[in-house]
Amino acid sequence: MIGIDWGTSAFRAYRLAPGGAILDRRESEGGILSVPKGGFPAALSAAIGPWLAEGESLVLLCGMVGSRQGWVEVPYLPCPAGPAEIAAALTPLPFEGARCLLVPGLTTRDAAGVPDVMRGEETKLIGLLAELGEAEALACLPGTHAKWARLGGGKVTGFATQMTGEVRAVLLDHSILGRLAQPDAPMDEAAFLRGVGRARQGGGLLHHLFGTRGLGLMGELSEAATASYLSGLLIGHEVAAALAEGMPPGPVHLAGSATLTRAYALAFGAFGLEHRLHDPDLALRGLALIAETLQ
Amino acid sequence: MIGIDWGTSAFRAYRLAPGGAILDRRESEGGILSVPKGGFPAALSAAIGPWLAEGESLVLLCGMVGSRQGWVEVPYLPCPAGPAEIAAALTPLPFEGARCLLVPGLTTRDAAGVPDVMRGEETKLIGLLAELGEAEALACLPGTHAKWARLGGGKVTGFATQMTGEVRAVLLDHSILGRLAQPDAPMDEAAFLRGVGRARQGGGLLHHLFGTRGLGLMGELSEAATASYLSGLLIGHEVAAALAEGMPPGPVHLAGSATLTRAYALAFGAFGLEHRLHDPDLALRGLALIAETLQ
Repeated sequence: MIGIDWGTSAFRAYRLAPGGAILDRRESEGGILSVPKGGFPAALSAAIGPWLAEGESLVLLCGMVGSRQGWVEVPYLPCPAGPAEIAAALTPLPFEGARCLLVPGLTTRDAAGVPDVMRGEETKLIGLLAELGEAEALACLPGTHAKWARLGGGKVTGFATQMTGEVRAVLLDHSILGRLAQPDAPMDEAAFLRGVGRARQGGGLLHHLFGTRGLGLMGELSEAATASYLSGLLIGHEVAAALAEGMPPGPVHLAGSATLTRAYALAFGAFGLEHRLHDPDLALRGLALIAETLQ
Repeated sequence: MIGIDWGTSAFRAYRLAPGGAILDRRESEGGILSVPKGGFPAALSAAIGPWLAEGESLVLLCGMVGSRQGWVEVPYLPCPAGPAEIAAALTPLPFEGARCLLVPGLTTRDAAGVPDVMRGEETKLIGLLAELGEAEALACLPGTHAKWARLGGGKVTGFATQMTGEVRAVLLDHSILGRLAQPDAPMDEAAFLRGVGRARQGGGLLHHLFGTRGLGLMGELSEAATASYLSGLLIGHEVAAALAEGMPPGPVHLAGSATLTRAYALAFGAFGLEHRLHDPDLALRGLALIAETLQ
């Protein structure tokens, strides 16, 4: 089969053997925002045509390709949802040459009834559920919009999105905080942990953000350390909020890029939280597992 | 005398009678960022030359004109500071034709030792102290960087900046939240109060921000109401943080633009906080009072 994670700014296609082993891969920056209106079938053919010519006949897609800006907008599936619910909600796509199915995103509501959404991460969580089985667990998938998901009974029972990555980016690129920061400076772990510690003090995030400038103006935080401090501050607030919601027993299950998981692992350590790091290619595993349910 | 509030993006000059009554005023968008390097004396002469020709001989300036990007960078004065401390720390500016003095900004440190700064608001607070005398009080000056100041014994004893206004602006202009918002929609008080209420629930600000998108995607928050909801969310978090620090007895003393003070008054009401609205021209009063100490 062919598994595809088609996001806003990246396209990742994998040719998978039964069981999920990767036979071949194709990655590009051809995210959905780079595809012209009506151009999705042609873009897909161009990317995976050779694999189809060699006999592949099933294509499973996940990610923002199923959003309003994507190929076809498919409704979000409400939590709790596991592999069976997701497999039953796959949406066939009009495509010549293969059976082409779209994985739905998930939606949930928090205790106050406010809705939350994900597209793409549900497939990673299916991959994680295969490892964790029926156990109650908490997963953290860092990113532009970090997802904290609760798992139990072999399903995703609910989740909360934290806008950490995007807030960091817009503050560094567009606010007064960026003027005192070297955005491309390497990660400074001491500054990051200083930011995490600051998040645990009083005053609130909006005050702590301005404090980044106060420290810079007073010569108490270097320009090279400012972006790392800001990351620690935001991730610290994110972890504190998750902790305040109550944690299930066991480690936090963490999966994402090497850079982000390293940062989150440091923050978890500062909060005294245990974590377990998982393969960042969980989406592949999830796509293979969903495909298995189709036989 | 002539009092000038010269900020980043605005220039406001006032010709004041003894006691602070306004004889004439001149306002423009000629903030410090619009003045070429070395161009401050010429810009000032162009703006107030006629008043100098008519015999004015004392010019008092406050605001970002005393920052690194301004005419001369003057050091911040540490809290506690009142009119006497500020008057003793005025910096003479090289200017032909009048005695020209710059009001220093203030600095403080919070309980954790993190520094905070203000430039311009100290002059408004001096104006407010003239009304409040020696009483212990809390002042809130909303804006791009909202200032919450503690007053007592006739001085500013400390303050905390909340980056509320700037965070709102960068999120609406540059984040995914802006795509679902009409930034120019009129204030929707119900949506604003809904955002304030949301700030009092669990999950943290970074989660609440993404919830704005969840509500929009699910059709539970209109594009016209989104900017007001976001304002309520951020101001709600700001007020909650101030409350958590402990409040002195009496109302919160509020001064600022009509739009912002209306919003903050609504938020205070939602939190059950009393407030007292003050004249937005407090800076004038402060400049006149500082000038009086020079005689």
